[in-house]
Amino acid sequence: MIYFNCDYNEGAHPQVLDMLCETNMEQTDGYGEDIYCSRARGVIRKLCGKEELDVHFLSGGTQANLTVITAALRPHQGVLAAETGHINVHETGAIESCGHKVLAVPSKDGKMTAGQVEAAYRSHIEDESFEHMVQPKLVYISNPTELGTIYSRAELEALSVVCRKNGLYLFMDGARLGYGLTAEGNDLDLDVISSLCDVFYIGGTKVGALFGEAVIISNPVLQEDFRYIIKQKGALLAKGRLLGVQFLALLDKGLYFKIGKRANDLAEEIRRACRKAGYPFFVENNTNQIFVIMDDEKLDKLREKYAFSYQQRVDESHSAVRFCTSWATTEENARKLAEDILDGKIE
Amino acid sequence: MIYFNCDYNEGAHPQVLDMLCETNMEQTDGYGEDIYCSRARGVIRKLCGKEELDVHFLSGGTQANLTVITAALRPHQGVLAAETGHINVHETGAIESCGHKVLAVPSKDGKMTAGQVEAAYRSHIEDESFEHMVQPKLVYISNPTELGTIYSRAELEALSVVCRKNGLYLFMDGARLGYGLTAEGNDLDLDVISSLCDVFYIGGTKVGALFGEAVIISNPVLQEDFRYIIKQKGALLAKGRLLGVQFLALLDKGLYFKIGKRANDLAEEIRRACRKAGYPFFVENNTNQIFVIMDDEKLDKLREKYAFSYQQRVDESHSAVRFCTSWATTEENARKLAEDILDGKIE
Amino acid sequence: MIYFNCDYNEGAHPQVLDMLCETNMEQTDGYGEDIYCSRARGVIRKLCGKEELDVHFLSGGTQANLTVITAALRPHQGVLAAETGHINVHETGAIESCGHKVLAVPSKDGKMTAGQVEAAYRSHIEDESFEHMVQPKLVYISNPTELGTIYSRAELEALSVVCRKNGLYLFMDGARLGYGLTAEGNDLDLDVISSLCDVFYIGGTKVGALFGEAVIISNPVLQEDFRYIIKQKGALLAKGRLLGVQFLALLDKGLYFKIGKRANDLAEEIRRACRKAGYPFFVENNTNQIFVIMDDEKLDKLREKYAFSYQQRVDESHSAVRFCTSWATTEENARKLAEDILDGKIE
Amino acid sequence: MIYFNCDYNEGAHPQVLDMLCETNMEQTDGYGEDIYCSRARGVIRKLCGKEELDVHFLSGGTQANLTVITAALRPHQGVLAAETGHINVHETGAIESCGHKVLAVPSKDGKMTAGQVEAAYRSHIEDESFEHMVQPKLVYISNPTELGTIYSRAELEALSVVCRKNGLYLFMDGARLGYGLTAEGNDLDLDVISSLCDVFYIGGTKVGALFGEAVIISNPVLQEDFRYIIKQKGALLAKGRLLGVQFLALLDKGLYFKIGKRANDLAEEIRRACRKAGYPFFVENNTNQIFVIMDDEKLDKLREKYAFSYQQRVDESHSAVRFCTSWATTEENARKLAEDILDGKIE
Repeated sequence: MIYFNCDYNEGAHPQVLDMLCETNMEQTDGYGEDIYCSRARGVIRKLCGKEELDVHFLSGGTQANLTVITAALRPHQGVLAAETGHINVHETGAIESCGHKVLAVPSKDGKMTAGQVEAAYRSHIEDESFEHMVQPKLVYISNPTELGTIYSRAELEALSVVCRKNGLYLFMDGARLGYGLTAEGNDLDLDVISSLCDVFYIGGTKVGALFGEAVIISNPVLQEDFRYIIKQKGALLAKGRLLGVQFLALLDKGLYFKIGKRANDLAEEIRRACRKAGYPFFVENNTNQIFVIMDDEKLDKLREKYAFSYQQRVDESHSAVRFCTSWATTEENARKLAEDILDGKIE
Repeated sequence: MIYFNCDYNEGAHPQVLDMLCETNMEQTDGYGEDIYCSRARGVIRKLCGKEELDVHFLSGGTQANLTVITAALRPHQGVLAAETGHINVHETGAIESCGHKVLAVPSKDGKMTAGQVEAAYRSHIEDESFEHMVQPKLVYISNPTELGTIYSRAELEALSVVCRKNGLYLFMDGARLGYGLTAEGNDLDLDVISSLCDVFYIGGTKVGALFGEAVIISNPVLQEDFRYIIKQKGALLAKGRLLGVQFLALLDKGLYFKIGKRANDLAEEIRRACRKAGYPFFVENNTNQIFVIMDDEKLDKLREKYAFSYQQRVDESHSAVRFCTSWATTEENARKLAEDILDGKIE
Repeated sequence: MIYFNCDYNEGAHPQVLDMLCETNMEQTDGYGEDIYCSRARGVIRKLCGKEELDVHFLSGGTQANLTVITAALRPHQGVLAAETGHINVHETGAIESCGHKVLAVPSKDGKMTAGQVEAAYRSHIEDESFEHMVQPKLVYISNPTELGTIYSRAELEALSVVCRKNGLYLFMDGARLGYGLTAEGNDLDLDVISSLCDVFYIGGTKVGALFGEAVIISNPVLQEDFRYIIKQKGALLAKGRLLGVQFLALLDKGLYFKIGKRANDLAEEIRRACRKAGYPFFVENNTNQIFVIMDDEKLDKLREKYAFSYQQRVDESHSAVRFCTSWATTEENARKLAEDILDGKIE
Repeated sequence: MIYFNCDYNEGAHPQVLDMLCETNMEQTDGYGEDIYCSRARGVIRKLCGKEELDVHFLSGGTQANLTVITAALRPHQGVLAAETGHINVHETGAIESCGHKVLAVPSKDGKMTAGQVEAAYRSHIEDESFEHMVQPKLVYISNPTELGTIYSRAELEALSVVCRKNGLYLFMDGARLGYGLTAEGNDLDLDVISSLCDVFYIGGTKVGALFGEAVIISNPVLQEDFRYIIKQKGALLAKGRLLGVQFLALLDKGLYFKIGKRANDLAEEIRRACRKAGYPFFVENNTNQIFVIMDDEKLDKLREKYAFSYQQRVDESHSAVRFCTSWATTEENARKLAEDILDGKIE
């Protein structure tokens, strides 16, 4: 069985693992106060072009989302998110468990627009019973989104403007950021993101690390006492240097972006096969997730050799499914899948 | 200014107030362990035809909702509710504040159907990532609903069947129950409700009491340790007998239903005027809330004399508004409003 | 049976009840936005000598405590309280239920000293693992305390100085404030308290109201969005005017202080009998709670006629118990108890 | 600088790291549903002698504690713990953040006795205001404790008997279990522990793993829906196999116990030096933590070469400090420290 069902089927990129092995028996302080975390923070600040950023290393996406949102909000405040947003559907109510309502906004492509944020904010403050309703305070977006789409610089700027005007925090979930920033058509970079967002994270788990997300906080209000919240949520890794080491290996010399780009290229090869074979896309995008609509018969056949994930039924005989490439996908496997989609060799 | 904006503009029905005055200087135990609470419990058990019910008296609707739901759910479990449900929109995230997601279900008339509950439940347990999603465990309905509609016995039975089959709790918010049980077309009573629901409440605040909701728990699982939860939520009234006295005054000799019926009759008088004047209803119902669509000019004129609440814009020149009658509405005021709607005398 | 077990055995002072009756059928806005709440706020601001205070009316003490503390703290922050403090022992973990640890400080007389607060604060910030510990942020005191003792102006000033120096909030639970401010030896008043505390409340439930606590917020940081939190906690009374009316009746012409003083005087009469009969006090104080140590035989005899509360065993044959007077205690009953303590007539 | 300040200064035992490297590029399912987690579960069940155990792999101790306790308790229930317990002092209020009070019990050696549990339980149910107090429901112990002491089989049996009699859950934090089970005088094993406790964990982070704790649930009530809670708390590692692989490497052939024993032996060498040099112990124990009292001058000198942790001041010129050995401590470093304590060579 070849796995295309997600982007975390393997361990870590060999260069990441090597660095973990090399540093394994060194003695360091715990809880992220070691030299590797410190160096990784330096690299990230440099990539963002800002010395004043706070950088914290957490273990996973849900953990990062709930820690950031807990730190940012007062009890009566909620999170605006696309209805497809990970926090709204796939984290077992982690945000609500921390006391906050997710205020879901309709979305077709996984994105939320500045106009939607403005409308939600206005609708709240103009309601005569506003104190009887959750106060929107933080805008949660992911880039790439759950549907593999990416925000343009113009879209992100517009969101940032609306948020700042209305006193809202802008938070970007970057669990797959490496695939987003290297996608065709992308015009964002870490400098721009760290300028426009109050807080965001660079995902490691899905882009070459064993595990780990680097949370970057630019808004000083959100920086205060953040480590207390990390500890309280059970998210302060004892051997924090494991995260520092991994992000150093990924970011110090550009490995993160190289492997992100490569995964996108392999995804494009599979997309080309889909196009050629006449399978329409459920969502158009250029990152490592491919959402395609196929007839159920074809899907049954592919299931014999490949693991992929089911998205939803489209009509009586067709379904949308998702294939993911990742930093670990081999050219051989991508080629095989492309050929099986085409029912023929690619020369 | 004459108030039709809600059903809690006045204090208590005079008979309720009289009983509070008569008993005022008696010494009793606190926290609902007095003779009046005990007698009120007896009356309620008799009206429900069941001796084994637990009855607790709380101060208000949001308090009742959050206390019941907190007591019923484990942390990963959520509440199915119509998207218009009070807990979903007008309680400042009280349920999320207690850690639970409200799983909103589309609804046109404020009701949720058995089919919707079954579909939501199935969709959860059939999802391969079910552990990554909030588990539906309690079905929250209100009767009458936020839109003044009522559940038929058949509808409630169907909900109850689906809930029991799937291990879900059925909870009825009865903040306006007195208006629902006396509405034209109603075929429910306390006996049936207490048989079909695991927990429900009889609302006093909006139907003749100064304040108070009588929470009735028929499911023994939900009865356990409920008073601890009441206390923890700040909902255990020191002078609990105030609530016992009020429910005794309301329920012992049928006052509650008499004043409920009267409010519905006055609402019907206003509805008749609307029909005669050609104003369509935003929602059709038979309880004390009237949802009617009028042109903005007419509304501006009515606003000079009456307070009512704005529901939503319908088109460029029309809006839906809500007029409420209550146990306290005078015949004179209802008549005045009807005439002003008609722009003419009613003989 | 004559009740001395607590200070909430009866309803409301007749003048309070009269005003509720007189205003009963008036139509007002809900949720505390009526003319009576507004007038009561004005009276309180005047008594405190400050126009800029926020005043909110809640239903009970636990509710007031959990609402204020929820509004004041971020998730990693905790409350310093005497180990005997109500929030630490008798509210079923209401504060923890809102996510905050109560950091209990030893206390013999129910009070916490400025020195203890300073020590707790220092010990936190000087610990190298401070981020692994709950951050003390709010100091909770009650006046009178659970043991009926009161803070002197000098003690409160010292607490206030320490709190402000260290960025801590000072919160006074005034559930029995009326008995404290009229006690012999008291040198506090509402002006001083509202100057020294960031937030406090004037208790109505135990001092003449049916129910109700007036929360007064002087610190502008704590004022922000407080009504959202009230609503979220189920503490926003629909007919808020009930609370406004009661506090107006109690405070407008000094009734609150008159009845507080009277209860203290009756307590003193009972204390005199104890002294004369040779029963030592468990705690020395001058407010409406009497903590006295008696032999178990005497207590058994008193139990035949009186309800009082058990404090704790002192030795094999003696126990400490509590007798409470209140605004409602009759001179006749106080005299009876005094005589039964003395086993003889008082001429 | 040589680190003896904690037992997590290095990465993983080489055999653990080797297995991570060997399996690195294999494709597996995520979230702990892979073959390695499955095999590790099998090994643990065999070591415990019970097929019906649920085994879950989490990333760290605070995370394990908060997840287990959240899953086990209803909102009004609390945790009995020694006042020195990790959850009570060093997890930034993680348990309170989940809504539960930690009911701290005095302890001199870090342990809680069956008698203390029985007394706390009785005191709760016999209090007439029991519903106004947090209900004790779970007993949290750690083995070894925070002070390095261990429970005897007789002590654990007594705790288990009291817990079962009173419907309390018994939960053992085994963050350092490997050092406890191989300590001189220990008479516990995994079979006994899994029979006597409702839930416990085998700590990996401090005993040879990069990170990870294996939570073992024997009580079927606590097994239900546990994975939902893991996910909600952000504790469901995407690449769960990382934890399975590590526990397999540690437990399959006894490595875990071998390295635990070795660390204890090195600690004993240091203890011998302390005894010989005349330094008294702050706490007597036989595990990898050494609590010794030294004069401040000596400590200053040791600080030049060694990192260790400060426990508390004992008198004007003496302090208690902690030295930790671990699976990674070298014989050379242990010897050096012993000699520097003795101010002389050990031949």
